[in-house]
Amino acid sequence: MVNEKKTMSIIVHSGTFDKLMPVFMLASTAASMDTQVNLFFTFWGLSALKKGGLGKAKLPGLMSIGTGMMKGRMAKAKVPTMDEMLKMCRETGNVKLYACSTTMELMHVAKEDLIPEVDDIVGAATFMELALNSEVNLFI
Amino acid sequence: MVNEKKTMSIIVHSGTFDKLMPVFMLASTAASMDTQVNLFFTFWGLSALKKGGLGKAKLPGLMSIGTGMMKGRMAKAKVPTMDEMLKMCRETGNVKLYACSTTMELMHVAKEDLIPEVDDIVGAATFMELALNSEVNLFI
Amino acid sequence: MVNEKKTMSIIVHSGTFDKLMPVFMLASTAASMDTQVNLFFTFWGLSALKKGGLGKAKLPGLMSIGTGMMKGRMAKAKVPTMDEMLKMCRETGNVKLYACSTTMELMHVAKEDLIPEVDDIVGAATFMELALNSEVNLFI
Repeated sequence: MVNEKKTMSIIVHSGTFDKLMPVFMLASTAASMDTQVNLFFTFWGLSALKKGGLGKAKLPGLMSIGTGMMKGRMAKAKVPTMDEMLKMCRETGNVKLYACSTTMELMHVAKEDLIPEVDDIVGAATFMELALNSEVNLFI
Repeated sequence: MVNEKKTMSIIVHSGTFDKLMPVFMLASTAASMDTQVNLFFTFWGLSALKKGGLGKAKLPGLMSIGTGMMKGRMAKAKVPTMDEMLKMCRETGNVKLYACSTTMELMHVAKEDLIPEVDDIVGAATFMELALNSEVNLFI
Repeated sequence: MVNEKKTMSIIVHSGTFDKLMPVFMLASTAASMDTQVNLFFTFWGLSALKKGGLGKAKLPGLMSIGTGMMKGRMAKAKVPTMDEMLKMCRETGNVKLYACSTTMELMHVAKEDLIPEVDDIVGAATFMELALNSEVNLFI
């Protein structure tokens, strides 16, 4: 019997720093454990795939002014930045990045606005197919 | 061996437009792929099952004033409205709508306040049984 | 064939009353159905594991002033408090509480700040292992 890779699929709906952090933490952790990871960036989450988007993410609402302090603490605790985690994800070869086609249309985002790491622009049906065959599914 | 239908169960906890949209997008997409879908509307999410509730949902917090603009963009992009997606869900026969009994009591919602499409009013234990037998589980 | 216990794993990322309530509702319900439950408290969610933390949780943003009213309605509807649900969880022996080690460092939380019910302080990799072997995974 073949030892098949397990899969985690995450619908990345949020665009705030506190939600994108666990997305990349979980993705890089799972990928380093040889788990296949599919990330589908939709609605507010699509901002993370825009050029420079990860660096601009802020804590939600009134807490946004504390984003810099949180980043400082992360640096001190030697937690990688999201850009570094994205790089780690890609180096494992286990993480696929998908941009939601409907969101691109609604938010007026063009293909050339996206970072080159994006694997594909897909609709909900394509992602649903992946989700139905994943061991772990999360909506973040 | 019988080819059994796959199942997706979603706990719909949020009541804002940006969260209800993906609920109905994912539900209608999965249902059209012949996946069984169970939606359990609890806490803020219960508002979606109240008569006229879907039409009243707004973007969260200060963004609420942008809800009309978002709806305009959706119409232009020919994305169905939530009411239309709900209808599509029901026409497939694959989507069940459950209202959380505890939330109804806490939020003072009566059975006659709910839309007729609701299949049943159930507690957490009934939904947990469905969740434990689903391929995809999401909390939105 | 051995009848193995099913497992639900929840990443508890939120610290507000409306999100912690379903965490403990779902956990206590599942545990009473002899399901193994793993709760991983991370980011804002870690506050729930701090001494006195559950009692301090509030509804989000401007709704926070309504927390007391919600608690009153819950008491009237004989819904257990979160502290009571936590106790129920522990009495079944089916619920494990994990604190996220990275969050403890980022939020300056020490081991002695946590309630004694915490089973272990672990990193994302340890929790991912549990998630990959769970029937139900949720991010709340």
